[in-house]
Amino acid sequence: MSSSSRPIILTGDRTTGPLHIGHYVGSLRSRIELQHTHQQYVLLADAQALTDNAHDVDKVRSNVIEVALDYLAVGIDPELSAICVQSALPALAELSMLYLNFVSVARLERNPTIKEEISARGFGRDIPAGFLCYPAAQAADITAFKATVVPVGEDQIPMIEQTNELVRRLNRQIGHRLLPEATALISPVGRLPGVDGKAKMSKSQGTAILLSSTDQEIETAVQRIYTDPNHLRVSDPGRVDGNVVFTYLDAFDTDKEEVENLKDHYARGGLGDSFLKRRLSELLKATIGPIRERRALLSRDPDTIMDIIRHGTKLAREITERTKVEIMTGLGLFRL
Amino acid sequence: MSSSSRPIILTGDRTTGPLHIGHYVGSLRSRIELQHTHQQYVLLADAQALTDNAHDVDKVRSNVIEVALDYLAVGIDPELSAICVQSALPALAELSMLYLNFVSVARLERNPTIKEEISARGFGRDIPAGFLCYPAAQAADITAFKATVVPVGEDQIPMIEQTNELVRRLNRQIGHRLLPEATALISPVGRLPGVDGKAKMSKSQGTAILLSSTDQEIETAVQRIYTDPNHLRVSDPGRVDGNVVFTYLDAFDTDKEEVENLKDHYARGGLGDSFLKRRLSELLKATIGPIRERRALLSRDPDTIMDIIRHGTKLAREITERTKVEIMTGLGLFRL
Repeated sequence: MSSSSRPIILTGDRTTGPLHIGHYVGSLRSRIELQHTHQQYVLLADAQALTDNAHDVDKVRSNVIEVALDYLAVGIDPELSAICVQSALPALAELSMLYLNFVSVARLERNPTIKEEISARGFGRDIPAGFLCYPAAQAADITAFKATVVPVGEDQIPMIEQTNELVRRLNRQIGHRLLPEATALISPVGRLPGVDGKAKMSKSQGTAILLSSTDQEIETAVQRIYTDPNHLRVSDPGRVDGNVVFTYLDAFDTDKEEVENLKDHYARGGLGDSFLKRRLSELLKATIGPIRERRALLSRDPDTIMDIIRHGTKLAREITERTKVEIMTGLGLFRL
Repeated sequence: MSSSSRPIILTGDRTTGPLHIGHYVGSLRSRIELQHTHQQYVLLADAQALTDNAHDVDKVRSNVIEVALDYLAVGIDPELSAICVQSALPALAELSMLYLNFVSVARLERNPTIKEEISARGFGRDIPAGFLCYPAAQAADITAFKATVVPVGEDQIPMIEQTNELVRRLNRQIGHRLLPEATALISPVGRLPGVDGKAKMSKSQGTAILLSSTDQEIETAVQRIYTDPNHLRVSDPGRVDGNVVFTYLDAFDTDKEEVENLKDHYARGGLGDSFLKRRLSELLKATIGPIRERRALLSRDPDTIMDIIRHGTKLAREITERTKVEIMTGLGLFRL
């Protein structure tokens, strides 16, 4: 299939920290597959990261390179996927500002993802305007690339719905279907919990296992994994549901049958946590080891990394500028 | 004074309709003076016009040229002032999106100008997000040009205050005074009421006298001017306050002494409306006549108009791009 006729995927990550095994099973693994069948744009989303990190620009900047290193280390191929920097694509900001005129404040506030994230972040009335406006910015990102496939978690589905609402509104006013609607591609693996069993891996709280972890760090993290607090003796029956070791095994162990056997054994009693943790530890080391090594190698050649990012951003700039002009012309804005 | 050491003025108009005599006495007249002592950027604010006109892009587009014609016809000199199109300056959108991260939704909602305009437009909960965000966009416009002087009406002072709040916040985070604070230059002439005595001239309601009006249109409009409804006979004493003929004479008649005499005479009784209206009509015809003629002449040469706008926009693009890079670098954003 020629690259121009492939369906377009837009994906990416906020540059707030290096990526961890949650990203790996949730999105990175599938990007490595999808890049062979789709035209894939991977956004280093530093502008979006600023919507709730304006006070810490250093973190947002330095993680642009960290996340790019993670991408390349896991096997995102710059010949197949364009890795690009969001803040270096002016068309995205221009379309965002334009789209904000086509959506009401009330509609943004009703977006369930925004509602939840506002409450999760404890913003109260001090929510940054950029954060409230982020559904319009995301619609700008998706439409600027004319992406039809957007891999997201379940919790992000309302964002895609709001994008498509805007697409229909814009197409109606433009008078033809200039912009395609996007389809959410839901990851088969849900979000991995932190090693403490809490919903989210957190680097700062030490509950994430980074793709740059050493074997020692992996082992220490695996030791901390929340299992079944009532499983005191090996002979006790243990709980499988909510047991993070099994959640991780489900995500990483390719021997699904053996994992089911282990679950049964654990539930009956007679299987110790330490056995499971050793198995998981070996698996994670086998997965992360080569990634960490490629990452270390790549990080010694910052010029090549910059060249890759520059190349991807240049491609992305061409397509987003073209779409911007089509939209502005289609709506009937003044053109010099 | 060399142009580079001159104080920078940012001014402009929303491109929602051709300009009228209210614009002339409120801002255009002073721009013609200021361009000799300041580096003046005049923004054809089509992007801002969209914040409450997204449904009518044609109006916003077509008036870019109409307003540019008005500028040139009144004597804004493209050699002295840069006339530029807002939507053709990507840095303004990029800075707007950036600034939205530095201002809370609550702070935007507290802006008195926004509050008043929301109520005046009857938006209710359906206020477009772009409209709520417009103080951040205005701050982007002002700072992108590093303007220190911003001519505004009294009602716009809170916008300048919010810009300066953002400037202080950004400078603090950048670590030095990269951006200057702006000073509001309040017009000595307040907003001219419509010929019906209502607060605002409205083209659609026929209560505005356009700079492109014919003599006949001027006479018809002057006939409609709201004076003193209780001044029935010439011999009756008449009310001067709120009498639109006198408001207009105050703005246009250079013979201030004679205007005071006429006010006294009118208040005593014995001076008819028709006498005053004839005087006003002659004055307006003398002012608008040459503007209309230059306007008609210019409109026959659209290529020249486009060249002027292109030239001004190019200059504006250079300065706004430069400032954008300084701000992004100063804050520590990733640079390719």
